[in-house]
Amino acid sequence: MVWSDTTINASEHQAFQSFFKAVDWLSEEDRKYLTAKLDPNSPPSREELEMWWKTIKSSVDNDTTYPHLSSIGIEILKKNAPEVAHTFPLSKVEKELGNLESQLGIIGQSAALTFKSSHANISTSYETKKGFETEKLTALLDGRRKPLIDEIKSVISKKEFDYVDPGNLKEYREQVLVWCKMLADKGYGSIGFPKEYGGGDDMEGYFTVMETLSYRDLSTVIKFGVQFGLWGMSVFMLGTKKHHEKYLPAIGTLELPGCFAMTETNHGSNVRGIETTATYNHKEKTFTINTPHINARKEYIGNAALHGKMATVFAKLLINDKDYGVSTFIVPLRDEEGKTLPGIAIEDCGRKMGLNGVDNGLIAFDKVTIPKENMLDRFSSVDEEGEFQSPIASDNKRFFTMLGTLVGGRIGIPRSALAASKSGLTIAIRYADKRRQFGPDGTTEVPILNYRMHQRRLLPLLSKTYACHFAMEYVTERFLNRKEDEMQEIEALAAGLKSYVTWHNTATLQECREACGGKGFLSENRIDALKNDSDVYTTFEGDNTVLLQLVAKSRLSAYKEQFENMNLFTVIDYVVNKTKTSITEKNPLIIRNTDENHLLDPEFHLNAFQYRENSILSSAGKRLKRLMDEGMDPFDAVNVAQHHLFTLAMAFIERVILEKFIEKIEQTTDPELKQVLKRLCDLFALYQIETHNGWYLEQGYMEGIKSKAIRKMVNQLCWEIRKDAVPLVNAFNIPDSCLSAPIAT
Amino acid sequence: MVWSDTTINASEHQAFQSFFKAVDWLSEEDRKYLTAKLDPNSPPSREELEMWWKTIKSSVDNDTTYPHLSSIGIEILKKNAPEVAHTFPLSKVEKELGNLESQLGIIGQSAALTFKSSHANISTSYETKKGFETEKLTALLDGRRKPLIDEIKSVISKKEFDYVDPGNLKEYREQVLVWCKMLADKGYGSIGFPKEYGGGDDMEGYFTVMETLSYRDLSTVIKFGVQFGLWGMSVFMLGTKKHHEKYLPAIGTLELPGCFAMTETNHGSNVRGIETTATYNHKEKTFTINTPHINARKEYIGNAALHGKMATVFAKLLINDKDYGVSTFIVPLRDEEGKTLPGIAIEDCGRKMGLNGVDNGLIAFDKVTIPKENMLDRFSSVDEEGEFQSPIASDNKRFFTMLGTLVGGRIGIPRSALAASKSGLTIAIRYADKRRQFGPDGTTEVPILNYRMHQRRLLPLLSKTYACHFAMEYVTERFLNRKEDEMQEIEALAAGLKSYVTWHNTATLQECREACGGKGFLSENRIDALKNDSDVYTTFEGDNTVLLQLVAKSRLSAYKEQFENMNLFTVIDYVVNKTKTSITEKNPLIIRNTDENHLLDPEFHLNAFQYRENSILSSAGKRLKRLMDEGMDPFDAVNVAQHHLFTLAMAFIERVILEKFIEKIEQTTDPELKQVLKRLCDLFALYQIETHNGWYLEQGYMEGIKSKAIRKMVNQLCWEIRKDAVPLVNAFNIPDSCLSAPIAT
Repeated sequence: MVWSDTTINASEHQAFQSFFKAVDWLSEEDRKYLTAKLDPNSPPSREELEMWWKTIKSSVDNDTTYPHLSSIGIEILKKNAPEVAHTFPLSKVEKELGNLESQLGIIGQSAALTFKSSHANISTSYETKKGFETEKLTALLDGRRKPLIDEIKSVISKKEFDYVDPGNLKEYREQVLVWCKMLADKGYGSIGFPKEYGGGDDMEGYFTVMETLSYRDLSTVIKFGVQFGLWGMSVFMLGTKKHHEKYLPAIGTLELPGCFAMTETNHGSNVRGIETTATYNHKEKTFTINTPHINARKEYIGNAALHGKMATVFAKLLINDKDYGVSTFIVPLRDEEGKTLPGIAIEDCGRKMGLNGVDNGLIAFDKVTIPKENMLDRFSSVDEEGEFQSPIASDNKRFFTMLGTLVGGRIGIPRSALAASKSGLTIAIRYADKRRQFGPDGTTEVPILNYRMHQRRLLPLLSKTYACHFAMEYVTERFLNRKEDEMQEIEALAAGLKSYVTWHNTATLQECREACGGKGFLSENRIDALKNDSDVYTTFEGDNTVLLQLVAKSRLSAYKEQFENMNLFTVIDYVVNKTKTSITEKNPLIIRNTDENHLLDPEFHLNAFQYRENSILSSAGKRLKRLMDEGMDPFDAVNVAQHHLFTLAMAFIERVILEKFIEKIEQTTDPELKQVLKRLCDLFALYQIETHNGWYLEQGYMEGIKSKAIRKMVNQLCWEIRKDAVPLVNAFNIPDSCLSAPIAT
Repeated sequence: MVWSDTTINASEHQAFQSFFKAVDWLSEEDRKYLTAKLDPNSPPSREELEMWWKTIKSSVDNDTTYPHLSSIGIEILKKNAPEVAHTFPLSKVEKELGNLESQLGIIGQSAALTFKSSHANISTSYETKKGFETEKLTALLDGRRKPLIDEIKSVISKKEFDYVDPGNLKEYREQVLVWCKMLADKGYGSIGFPKEYGGGDDMEGYFTVMETLSYRDLSTVIKFGVQFGLWGMSVFMLGTKKHHEKYLPAIGTLELPGCFAMTETNHGSNVRGIETTATYNHKEKTFTINTPHINARKEYIGNAALHGKMATVFAKLLINDKDYGVSTFIVPLRDEEGKTLPGIAIEDCGRKMGLNGVDNGLIAFDKVTIPKENMLDRFSSVDEEGEFQSPIASDNKRFFTMLGTLVGGRIGIPRSALAASKSGLTIAIRYADKRRQFGPDGTTEVPILNYRMHQRRLLPLLSKTYACHFAMEYVTERFLNRKEDEMQEIEALAAGLKSYVTWHNTATLQECREACGGKGFLSENRIDALKNDSDVYTTFEGDNTVLLQLVAKSRLSAYKEQFENMNLFTVIDYVVNKTKTSITEKNPLIIRNTDENHLLDPEFHLNAFQYRENSILSSAGKRLKRLMDEGMDPFDAVNVAQHHLFTLAMAFIERVILEKFIEKIEQTTDPELKQVLKRLCDLFALYQIETHNGWYLEQGYMEGIKSKAIRKMVNQLCWEIRKDAVPLVNAFNIPDSCLSAPIAT
């Protein structure tokens, strides 16, 4: 054993010398022989080492436990030379050699296993076990939209939808257009439009389509979303009957491909700052759409580079030189043959990190004239006298009402992201269950999902994916049944979940990529496409960081209506006073409670999440008030507290997610499903508490002993969920043809 | 103000009613008028709101501070109707209206700013300021290799090296080969080879080339590394004179493109498990190389799909049916014309997440015969009698010595990763300095780098990039001057830094992508290529998670020689005893010390990092010993503690990084550079402590008050460094032609 690294160092040499002197059962000859064999300057030959190894190995019994290495030595002696053995005080020898082993830092019992040809170990033998009916869990996840989901899955599983190489932009974009047409032909494009214009009057169906399509090519999902969700919905939500009649039927069938031209190079998040103008000419009853400079071009516009024939254009309305703020207009871009119209200049955005099947472009308008009826006039219009009219008096409110109608996108995108996460996890977890690498000597290698680190990399993400699924179900439901006075809350929920879920997706796919090693880097296994295509989800439909600032402001002014329009300094007193009493008291017994029942109690989890949310809400409110009371400019004050506000928004969203997960489990009746979901929920909750343990300890909400117990419990839950992991991803029920990854199918 | 969201809610309405009743200076008529104007059911018209707004705005003086909104009202009254004004008890009115504002949650002084056309604020005006000479910092970063660095930068800045579209695999791969040939022609390929074989005897130069080339196309860097670093260095390090003479000159000029065929489909990290065989035939003096089954094919092999003519093949050596473990052999793959030789079957790995200019492939050998002299026989050979020979007796030691010769790759890769991070940060920080979005009313928009969240996203990563730079300088130096007995330490350092730096790179580029919004998603700005090309760095040259396990074991057995060959159960007693006394005592004064001088004291930082490293080392050692003492299988025990070991390795590497950063600053004499580097180092140290604050609080190393002070200090440092951020990335001195991103140049 000491020669196993072919070196004997000074302290080891010293230990032997002292030992030889101390024991009384070695003859002078024995001592000499041993000293020679343990001379640091003359290691044994390869053959000699091999002979020793074989001798020991052949003498070891797989089923015996050897307390020391020397126990094996004594066995060999007894068997091979019984006549010599009895001349030694064997139990004394074994004990003293055992002490020497300890002195050398050897744990004899463990070291003895090296010589066994096999021995029981948990790491190798642990495996997937069926603990519930995956079909039942699939049914629970799909809910009442199961028939539609199954129908779409069967459509996108067909050969015509087979993935194509994304290398050739031209071919890829044309293919994606073909796919969108095939989907439109099935009626999926217009499913959210009113029946009278060829639609299905089924907005929930639209979200289901967006999500389910996301198991296939994501460029198709986004091109589909641009056409039907952005272009179509903007005409529907911002326009009036005349627009609906004229455009919606052809949009729904994709006969009229169009764009949603809001973002400009210089203004993305800050939509109010856009510089494109729409000047009203009362004499001709027309508008002139104009791009004042190169950085005011519409940018990243989907469908613009190749296929879009018209666009909903956001522009500042000017009447008699007076600026009436942002309004929307339908502007033709191309003629029937696809030729760009006069005054329209389009540039291709070229290759992107992902979504290369979508033809994004830049659009410039050089004094393009459109008829008056092209103004989408639901929220603002110009009357017969050429005067501005609006049903909403406040410019602010009008602006945010207009944008608020587009909140659906902030539900469609995270649902698509979640589908991408599910695909990534299905691939990575199935692979980890089969892939073996390393293992104890003499056994088969260990499935990498049995490694604790691998579990920690993937399983908390799996639990979070389930958690987000139920939260998205909830916000969808709220949106579909929205009432006017709930809009502020629903918009905040959608913005927050959009941010949380899309970041979760990015992190999940990155982890899946790495967890699959070299296989994860090959495009054939599709994690790269999932990651790169969905990466921009954290940026579009509102940049996550910006959105979360809005969510935080909304929390600080929970009783106001339009959360994007908050002047914080008008409202924070309210929240400061409100939260004073609502923070749960810290119980001195609970902060040290490491009892398993307590740690796995959903009430404890929810309390911890609520405590965090309320505390941060209160402290952020107080801080802002203090800064402004001291005379700091409110914009500066909000900037100083920006990280604080970010944390507040995240804490709010996490509390909502946990709450909905717990409710879902309470509603679940099947005992097997209830158990596995409860375990996932426990992992989600405790993993988040572990992630924020610095904050909890800082607050005195728990003590070190409890945070350590939570870390241990997270490891334990990962270990327990490992056996369910494959069934849990199978329950996502993603068609193999969509997954396509050879390592997963 | 109350109508600003066009709604008056019940509590607001209630507040007005009580107020009107309470004050004595309103006439009945006034009350009626006001009540009518504040009727929740009849909001003012657009025109009326606008008139109010204009009236107020035109009366407000930009330079006056108004304690309440009502202070503005009184000004208006005094100016427009002095005859009415004097009939009111004005100071009482102002005070009572001020109270009403508070009651409504309005901070009057802040709210009054809304009506000013402009007012001073910090968020808008803060900007880049020159605090040091960037050239001097560049010189400090480049050190003695500056001439070579400048030379390479000028080569890769030329037109011939302009980026090509990665969409067409065939063209891209041929272009990358051309680039590699151009670099070889300059002598960069053979720079690390001995002079006698056409090289430059300059291993340090080789690392410098790898790093500097990484400012250009990363496929070129990896193809270059495969040819000269892996294929060339394996012949040099594992072969003997006959191989050097025969192959090195042609490898160095790229006349002989080759591969490094180690990894197999079923065995990546676990190299010892490879199944390719090399059977010795004594009669013919040949070896037969064979792939036993499809999953034993060599996979991901760079240069294999198209260009490689030969390969260093790792295979199990069999002599007379006896397995002598892994050895290496030169196996021809293609003839002069590039046609695959008989018995060789190559499959293209196809498109990958990145590095698509490298032709990775799978190789299968169907009983391919090679002459005996093709065995790379430095560490193992077959003698004239057909007997196995090796200068290293132990199979273990031989194996790890062989792999240890390839440790250079674990230095080249993180240096390349760091160059990618520097490119990403240069692009993202320059963009953030120019890009403006949102701002207080009446001012220009704010550069997004002035937002606290944006600073928090990018600046800690900038500080870590600098920290890693100096750490890589250190490990390179150690490697170049290595002595035999330092190899275990150097291998652990290289493995640890490879993992740490490549993960840092992945995280940095992801953040840069998002921080540039839509612009970051466009390929023209190159963050996508940087991210996708370097993503696999965390996987190849040793998977990070696996490497860190080895690093941890090395720390637990610091006195052993070959760290990859550790049987943990033979050594952990040592470390358990050793660390008992080495943990710094917790000082009751220091755990609460929030003094700025203390928080910015490098001694405090280093102590905190050392304390963490030593504590985790000790607790991990004790835990493993306890588990094994209880009789747990050692493999299982290591698995149970895997997350613990991971943390240990990370803590070790972080301590080394901080130590080297602090040393570098001590050696810096220029006061301006010293100051800016000190600030970066403070941010690096405190950001890490903040990241691990849960652990520190759990241990009682600090109290909540201190961890809060650290969070505040991190914000403060980010704010201070923001003005240096652009000069700090400019000091990386990356040619604009290499950055190429329009948003950065």
